[in-house]
Amino acid sequence: MAAEGLKALWRDGRTALGAWLFLREPLIAEAASKAGYDYVCIDMQHGLQDYADAVAMLQAVATGPATPMVRVPANEPGIIGRVLDAGALAVVVPLVNSAEEAAAAVAASRYPPAGTRSMGPVGASTRHGADYFGRADELVACIPMIETRQAVERADEILAVPGLDAVYVGPADLSISYGLPPRNDNPGDPFDPALAVVLDACRRHGVVPGVHADPSLAGKRSASGFRMISVGYDLGNVMGGLRRDLASSREAIEGGEAP
Amino acid sequence: MAAEGLKALWRDGRTALGAWLFLREPLIAEAASKAGYDYVCIDMQHGLQDYADAVAMLQAVATGPATPMVRVPANEPGIIGRVLDAGALAVVVPLVNSAEEAAAAVAASRYPPAGTRSMGPVGASTRHGADYFGRADELVACIPMIETRQAVERADEILAVPGLDAVYVGPADLSISYGLPPRNDNPGDPFDPALAVVLDACRRHGVVPGVHADPSLAGKRSASGFRMISVGYDLGNVMGGLRRDLASSREAIEGGEAP
Amino acid sequence: MAAEGLKALWRDGRTALGAWLFLREPLIAEAASKAGYDYVCIDMQHGLQDYADAVAMLQAVATGPATPMVRVPANEPGIIGRVLDAGALAVVVPLVNSAEEAAAAVAASRYPPAGTRSMGPVGASTRHGADYFGRADELVACIPMIETRQAVERADEILAVPGLDAVYVGPADLSISYGLPPRNDNPGDPFDPALAVVLDACRRHGVVPGVHADPSLAGKRSASGFRMISVGYDLGNVMGGLRRDLASSREAIEGGEAP
Amino acid sequence: MAAEGLKALWRDGRTALGAWLFLREPLIAEAASKAGYDYVCIDMQHGLQDYADAVAMLQAVATGPATPMVRVPANEPGIIGRVLDAGALAVVVPLVNSAEEAAAAVAASRYPPAGTRSMGPVGASTRHGADYFGRADELVACIPMIETRQAVERADEILAVPGLDAVYVGPADLSISYGLPPRNDNPGDPFDPALAVVLDACRRHGVVPGVHADPSLAGKRSASGFRMISVGYDLGNVMGGLRRDLASSREAIEGGEAP
Amino acid sequence: MAAEGLKALWRDGRTALGAWLFLREPLIAEAASKAGYDYVCIDMQHGLQDYADAVAMLQAVATGPATPMVRVPANEPGIIGRVLDAGALAVVVPLVNSAEEAAAAVAASRYPPAGTRSMGPVGASTRHGADYFGRADELVACIPMIETRQAVERADEILAVPGLDAVYVGPADLSISYGLPPRNDNPGDPFDPALAVVLDACRRHGVVPGVHADPSLAGKRSASGFRMISVGYDLGNVMGGLRRDLASSREAIEGGEAP
Amino acid sequence: MAAEGLKALWRDGRTALGAWLFLREPLIAEAASKAGYDYVCIDMQHGLQDYADAVAMLQAVATGPATPMVRVPANEPGIIGRVLDAGALAVVVPLVNSAEEAAAAVAASRYPPAGTRSMGPVGASTRHGADYFGRADELVACIPMIETRQAVERADEILAVPGLDAVYVGPADLSISYGLPPRNDNPGDPFDPALAVVLDACRRHGVVPGVHADPSLAGKRSASGFRMISVGYDLGNVMGGLRRDLASSREAIEGGEAP
Repeated sequence: MAAEGLKALWRDGRTALGAWLFLREPLIAEAASKAGYDYVCIDMQHGLQDYADAVAMLQAVATGPATPMVRVPANEPGIIGRVLDAGALAVVVPLVNSAEEAAAAVAASRYPPAGTRSMGPVGASTRHGADYFGRADELVACIPMIETRQAVERADEILAVPGLDAVYVGPADLSISYGLPPRNDNPGDPFDPALAVVLDACRRHGVVPGVHADPSLAGKRSASGFRMISVGYDLGNVMGGLRRDLASSREAIEGGEAP
Repeated sequence: MAAEGLKALWRDGRTALGAWLFLREPLIAEAASKAGYDYVCIDMQHGLQDYADAVAMLQAVATGPATPMVRVPANEPGIIGRVLDAGALAVVVPLVNSAEEAAAAVAASRYPPAGTRSMGPVGASTRHGADYFGRADELVACIPMIETRQAVERADEILAVPGLDAVYVGPADLSISYGLPPRNDNPGDPFDPALAVVLDACRRHGVVPGVHADPSLAGKRSASGFRMISVGYDLGNVMGGLRRDLASSREAIEGGEAP
Repeated sequence: MAAEGLKALWRDGRTALGAWLFLREPLIAEAASKAGYDYVCIDMQHGLQDYADAVAMLQAVATGPATPMVRVPANEPGIIGRVLDAGALAVVVPLVNSAEEAAAAVAASRYPPAGTRSMGPVGASTRHGADYFGRADELVACIPMIETRQAVERADEILAVPGLDAVYVGPADLSISYGLPPRNDNPGDPFDPALAVVLDACRRHGVVPGVHADPSLAGKRSASGFRMISVGYDLGNVMGGLRRDLASSREAIEGGEAP
Repeated sequence: MAAEGLKALWRDGRTALGAWLFLREPLIAEAASKAGYDYVCIDMQHGLQDYADAVAMLQAVATGPATPMVRVPANEPGIIGRVLDAGALAVVVPLVNSAEEAAAAVAASRYPPAGTRSMGPVGASTRHGADYFGRADELVACIPMIETRQAVERADEILAVPGLDAVYVGPADLSISYGLPPRNDNPGDPFDPALAVVLDACRRHGVVPGVHADPSLAGKRSASGFRMISVGYDLGNVMGGLRRDLASSREAIEGGEAP
Repeated sequence: MAAEGLKALWRDGRTALGAWLFLREPLIAEAASKAGYDYVCIDMQHGLQDYADAVAMLQAVATGPATPMVRVPANEPGIIGRVLDAGALAVVVPLVNSAEEAAAAVAASRYPPAGTRSMGPVGASTRHGADYFGRADELVACIPMIETRQAVERADEILAVPGLDAVYVGPADLSISYGLPPRNDNPGDPFDPALAVVLDACRRHGVVPGVHADPSLAGKRSASGFRMISVGYDLGNVMGGLRRDLASSREAIEGGEAP
Repeated sequence: MAAEGLKALWRDGRTALGAWLFLREPLIAEAASKAGYDYVCIDMQHGLQDYADAVAMLQAVATGPATPMVRVPANEPGIIGRVLDAGALAVVVPLVNSAEEAAAAVAASRYPPAGTRSMGPVGASTRHGADYFGRADELVACIPMIETRQAVERADEILAVPGLDAVYVGPADLSISYGLPPRNDNPGDPFDPALAVVLDACRRHGVVPGVHADPSLAGKRSASGFRMISVGYDLGNVMGGLRRDLASSREAIEGGEAP
């Protein structure tokens, strides 16, 4: 891991670009970490990965400089503690719809007195140093997701919860909560104003705004102020690539002259 | 699996396009099988897959119409028998450099009296029918690789071995055995003449010529007579895609105007 | 998966027979799916399967026509979402004892506005089509379990919750909640009246009644009105079979006359 | 498993010594069980083990006489039921801070009428006998953890909950909840009085006091009254041993005379 | 493991009955070991098990008294050594067709000077005692398979190889090598005389004759002199049971009289 | 991996100390790599690791500076190629007893024209750079084992084979081939003269002499000229530690004075 990582990058006012992984392949996590992504997120909510995969992939990310991140399947302290113990330095918590839920995510991510995380960083202290316990709360980023209309409406109180490093907008879930199709972008009303509400609340509370995106949206999201932008995906690339390879090959053959 | 599969397709004089998988992800195998590839090959030689992965991925291929294929790590009867028992309907055998080695590959792929395969198709009879034993030698394609200068020089005797359905040219290994860089194509002498030798021997012996390729080579290889052409890869698509996604996103952001 | 599946079968007024799997073996799931069972249930509550096994077994079920079903270990939205994302088309939710708990099970199984399921059907859209999102709420069956005295007493309010496709009676748990031994059947009072309460409430609310059973009970349960009846088990067959094989062999040997 | 196990040992007034495992290696669990430990605990909270590992390691413990124990990741009935179904005979439940939470742990560990555990002991009845159901509540030890200042303050009401066999003090978490460094021992105030409160409440309520320790603390903890003392760890031994082996070898070589 | 095991049983002139496992489920191996089978064989040739499964299942067998046996995928010293290191006490070696191949199987199974097995019994010494090395050659049974016409014709020279404990007839492979259908029994000529040749050679050379069978053949095979008879199978019981359960349930429902 | 690694260290005339791992735990591999060992060897011959474990552990070693090494289970080109493809930079080949066998080990480890390794370094090029192919023969160390009397007698011709980087003495196997007990040291004749033969042949042929040892032997082996010395073991540390922890705790408790 880079000496500094995601939180240092944010302190410097820079924008983090991330790879988001749905597949259970540590070699992809290693490649993503070495490719220059600022963070690599293992998606235990919608990806195929279970805990053993997350453990392996967190180790794989550690072969390169990216910050190891996990999206947990639910806002539940057991799994948050376990992925942190396994060496995640950032945890994305889905479906945080209230200040109370945001506070629960923070509590699960911090040792006492800031939170209620239990002591036993088996993998984390092997990876991040024997002094991990003393530095953990500083090292670990807690990142609730804002991905429902309800959460947008309560953005101000959610963002006011102490201990949040960033929030992460899930545009597909946000869209369907507004009755829009599940896309990374739904330009216009009510999607754009919802993003603006989150960005504005982040600015006021000193929290980094993040968003699930794709390369075509990177410039736009960055320009509007997001500083944690996921743009690289394993699944889409492999599935899309396999379809394109076949289509272009068929075309080349059928267009081609017979032997 | 399509009622007919790879061997029927070849009997009809058609050309098979394949996906070649290096990663241990059954969901990719399922997607490839459903995407329209004629065969999906699990590469136990250079891929990350071990036997348990092959078992899982062969099952995954069976959710779609593609013919399930395995490249075994070596020309060894134990592993050939095991992947066939697990339901592979085509086996690619690396580094076959003589008629004797080709005959060994055939023997491992066929039940007596045609070969010496041992009885016990635990997965294959679940998948391909309770009558699998009687149809196995007809169902299963045995495909040795021609991938060294030595094999090219002995192409005629190798191709004369009874029981071969196809041979598969490995262009990277073939290239390095001629002192060329390890590429899918090395236009000119001695690479092209070597391919011509294989194609010619295939024609004379009634064996299907196959080749490891990529979409940019599909038309050329098809035009020269190859009828088993691998063009889709999981690894390259995901690794290349992750790099491209990052590069284009960085460019969009750095090119972009500040908020 | 059959073009129609479990919900279509119920719409036609037919009775579904199911296989219920406790072991972590995808080949058994494949065999069960091909054997003619209408559904194959992967039991993550009492079976040995964890999430990775469920992912593999759901894929295995997809090699045949049965509807893929999972019993989740608890009424928790994270795991319900994850098995649906992995391609389950029916989810059995244990220990639902109130309308509120039934509503929670429904909410976790449906996308907004019907529920709160989060978007990201990685496996489901590979398997069930790129248009999965739009059809998901129609495709997916949500099936709470009625398996306590408390649930029976509240059957009417539980069954009134919108969005239930079926309920599933767990007779062993139901029995012990009444102080009876943990059996699939405990003829007489209070077990039979409890079943009757559930059947009656199902009839009034248009919900399919289901029950854990065995072949000896199939006729009886069907005759009383159940239309989702689990009758095939991997574990019992293998454990019982191994004991019988040994006993009959010992007897044959000790009886000992030559044939 | 020894005919009697942990609960019999406690009935005889003896002290149980345990091995506590963080690594996912069933061979270590087997060795620990055979080495003479009274219990072997698989730590699903802070260890690397997930459910599949716990299943394998519980089986491994059963090759020897130790009582198989699991620390679950959270006080959640689903996972408590699953580890018991897999054959655990003792369950350690972390972060129990109130009588209500202790009662929830008990309920999840006991069949009705004592609790709400669901019927389906797939592994447990294979291992512990076909009559497992009738003996389960007697066989299984439910062991909440006392590891926060809050829990100490409520020790009396927690210990008064019916159905507790033992409580287990987590000294590292207890320490940090008092603002002390996360150690197994923090002699003096407020750590020692906290232990005394727990010991005293155990005595009054007839509950066995347990504590996470190490060999250097075994005598001290035993003398003060603890009767369940964990002293053997896989992780520390292997990590410390690898460091020592290298250091002493380097020293021997550098101290050594040249050849 | 029983204090004595398979070899002691043979020394006493008794007949061993075995379970033969094709599935990767340690719980089945445990159940078989406890059910009273004299040996439990993990079939790495035709079963789904790979090495990791064999390691887990050998441990599972050790929870009961049966002798742990493995059929290796090929007569190759690497895998023979590895399954013995993992704790197998008997190794079945397929397709032994000559005295030379039998001697190779023996060499791979014995430490010098009797053979060439390499030292490093990581699992075996944990399980069978710190003194394993000195007792290994006595503990381990080496069991080549006689399963081709060629092997029958050379039975006398194969059986004369020093160090064989038993031979194991594979009737399905033997049948197909004679042009018969792949069955456990093919009464009459040439199958019966082939069995007689093996039995006779065993008698003369003091080697235990074994055979793959099923409960219907147990009496017959025992009466003719076989003393190692496999009769219990996981796969057939579960697959057949699932089909029977469905068929009888459908019949009961369609037959349809109310209870 | 350190910029230079094992071969650079040897070029500088230094002595490499190694960790030797029998357990399947990537976290141990990571810790060993970070602890300062010059190489970390994954033992696929006598350890519990299979190929999937080796893939994971090679990745784990890459989180630190140690050179990743694998002992393959046999001198077979398929497995040698696969561990190199997975990123091993050194391969230890057991039981090399002749120049011909040594040449086979070299051929499997080198690309043409130096050998016959097949092209496809899926993991290695992700980890060691896109230019891996051109540097592979320089990066990879091929290390046959000298571990029988026969090999010692042929040491001169074995060591004369071009392409060997080091040889590795297996003292336990060497001992038993001389009729001595299987120990890391057997001072006196014939063990010491055998080591001297190997050391002398290494000196004359410019090959690095290596040996399996332990911390108590490090000084002695280094003084006699060995420059690759394995001294750290996972298994012994954890097994021995668990026994010591229990013994000292029992003693402390039974000795029993209060603190």
